[in-house]
Amino acid sequence: MFEGSTTVKPLQAPPLQVAHWFNTPAPVTLEQLGGRVVVLHAFQMLCPRCVSHGLPQAQRLHRLFSREQVSVVGLHTVFEHHAVMGNAAALQAFIHEYRLDFPIGMDQPDGTDGVPKTMQALNLRGTPSLVVLDKQGRVRLNHFGVIDDLQLGALVGGLIGEPALSQEEAQLPLRCDETGCALPASAATGP
Amino acid sequence: MFEGSTTVKPLQAPPLQVAHWFNTPAPVTLEQLGGRVVVLHAFQMLCPRCVSHGLPQAQRLHRLFSREQVSVVGLHTVFEHHAVMGNAAALQAFIHEYRLDFPIGMDQPDGTDGVPKTMQALNLRGTPSLVVLDKQGRVRLNHFGVIDDLQLGALVGGLIGEPALSQEEAQLPLRCDETGCALPASAATGP
Amino acid sequence: MFEGSTTVKPLQAPPLQVAHWFNTPAPVTLEQLGGRVVVLHAFQMLCPRCVSHGLPQAQRLHRLFSREQVSVVGLHTVFEHHAVMGNAAALQAFIHEYRLDFPIGMDQPDGTDGVPKTMQALNLRGTPSLVVLDKQGRVRLNHFGVIDDLQLGALVGGLIGEPALSQEEAQLPLRCDETGCALPASAATGP
Amino acid sequence: MFEGSTTVKPLQAPPLQVAHWFNTPAPVTLEQLGGRVVVLHAFQMLCPRCVSHGLPQAQRLHRLFSREQVSVVGLHTVFEHHAVMGNAAALQAFIHEYRLDFPIGMDQPDGTDGVPKTMQALNLRGTPSLVVLDKQGRVRLNHFGVIDDLQLGALVGGLIGEPALSQEEAQLPLRCDETGCALPASAATGP
Repeated sequence: MFEGSTTVKPLQAPPLQVAHWFNTPAPVTLEQLGGRVVVLHAFQMLCPRCVSHGLPQAQRLHRLFSREQVSVVGLHTVFEHHAVMGNAAALQAFIHEYRLDFPIGMDQPDGTDGVPKTMQALNLRGTPSLVVLDKQGRVRLNHFGVIDDLQLGALVGGLIGEPALSQEEAQLPLRCDETGCALPASAATGP
Repeated sequence: MFEGSTTVKPLQAPPLQVAHWFNTPAPVTLEQLGGRVVVLHAFQMLCPRCVSHGLPQAQRLHRLFSREQVSVVGLHTVFEHHAVMGNAAALQAFIHEYRLDFPIGMDQPDGTDGVPKTMQALNLRGTPSLVVLDKQGRVRLNHFGVIDDLQLGALVGGLIGEPALSQEEAQLPLRCDETGCALPASAATGP
Repeated sequence: MFEGSTTVKPLQAPPLQVAHWFNTPAPVTLEQLGGRVVVLHAFQMLCPRCVSHGLPQAQRLHRLFSREQVSVVGLHTVFEHHAVMGNAAALQAFIHEYRLDFPIGMDQPDGTDGVPKTMQALNLRGTPSLVVLDKQGRVRLNHFGVIDDLQLGALVGGLIGEPALSQEEAQLPLRCDETGCALPASAATGP
Repeated sequence: MFEGSTTVKPLQAPPLQVAHWFNTPAPVTLEQLGGRVVVLHAFQMLCPRCVSHGLPQAQRLHRLFSREQVSVVGLHTVFEHHAVMGNAAALQAFIHEYRLDFPIGMDQPDGTDGVPKTMQALNLRGTPSLVVLDKQGRVRLNHFGVIDDLQLGALVGGLIGEPALSQEEAQLPLRCDETGCALPASAATGP
């Protein structure tokens, strides 16, 4: 259905590796967001289609859905012009001027140049990219380029309707033993 | 979630009452469309926001989704300027010039003036209006005015993910007796 | 400078032949408009690019410039679907619904079918078309299709700056004789 | 005619004070551009309306008109976020990513902070700003904010039609004496 998307078997998303967070009192982790649909928008502040299309779309998503249903997270994945964009002050000024108000992380640089770490782990092809995770934290869309609102809305709307637990987990009895009752794996945050 | 929408308990949609059909070899009935999400777009050819917003959106929906998932149906609900718009030739010319290719019905007039019959039965407030039915034929959105693609996509995407049968029907055993095995009510088309 | 335009030696525009006028207390003639830049917008109510582009542009022109500088005149040049569009009631409903407020004439039909008379006289190639006249009533642009605002603005702005009289007229002494002093030909309205 | 514009008596524009030039083999001076209409677009790379409106409009102007008629010049007038935007490398990356191809100068900083020098001299109120000069180098528009294409086109089109010399100069004989024949003052570049 989505041209330009990488069709993927739903794999668990790798953890976010972020050097600085903005618009959030504490670092965002995918574990915390379990049970919600997560939309990661990877951008660079000097990428024209990110500025004209991707970021306004991310902002619309953030405003449309309740926080309980959908979490929108921006990721500043600087892979070019590092000297200009690759510092927290530049990103902060950009976020301020564009009035972005969803959580945005600066992707952890890998050395002083090249592709940053979360971008590598997610196998992104460039910016803008959208990565959509289901309630179980699995990658259901990994899309490079522009995607229109009707398509994206349909995907997110479908994922909101899915159960938060996997079929197996939902069908299992609570895993209780003499120690107590454990949370299902997808909700657990500890080691 | 949708401003301008009438919040409704999901009631079964009334049947379409149509004087002429275009872009379809045979009249369209809601019974035929059972099991699919149905998007009815009510418009008038001289309604500016129908022309600039509603009809292009209906066309985008029609192109994006497979016919098995979503059926888009236009409804020409003439409630003003009847002498100009209220005839099949006018609608045919309009459909031709605007290159619309989804099924479109001319709502059955109620006398020579006033609000046509399907528009009355659906309690529409004007044009453009969108009425979205779930797979069981129940009205899940009845919206007057403009609705954006992200919202509409999310609604349709969610409905696509719903089961085609009601919970009760799905939980019941097949209704078989000495006569045979009956289709569930929502799929039955006969009297 | 204008692709899609017919390059023309500036010839005097032929008179408007109009069956019905709307948005004007009296018929509009080009003679009356001498000394102003005139923008004729030829359209059909069922022409998609007229509705989406040409008419909004004509409306913007009408609002931007003072009546002393620029006169915008619409011309409903029905050359297809005559049974649907070719009557005053249809055009009136259209003008009302689209809130058009500049003078609009229904081009005089030539028989019951075919190309109407002003459209023929102006050699228009279709709709939308723009014909721009200078202050002396000469055709300076005859453009079929879409033209962007920057180009059109530059043309109109240039014509506003031109003198209202031809060089010859401006250099001649007033044509006075024993009868009196005659208006220059371009301003004269009588026989 | 132009809301948001400063109505000004046409004064001679002050000289450009620029730290670095891009997209030009040599520094641009207003003296060189005498005889042409000049459109100065003042922007900052992190100013959203500059990016969404002003710079695309400047680019359209640059493409529409011949170089003999209209010169479009960009001016990066950094008055905030100096650490992020106030260096040539940042501007170079921005120009590269946005594919801007008209001459752009980095306005000369006044110290390390505050309003840069050309911006001060032109009395600009912020970004985006448009300053339009006539063929004699006089400021005919000094506009802060968004201006639409039809208005801007009309202004530029009108100025293109004006004579390159002032009335006085055009009426004077060539200023020749025993020394030789002097250029008119508006074209002279020396002290």
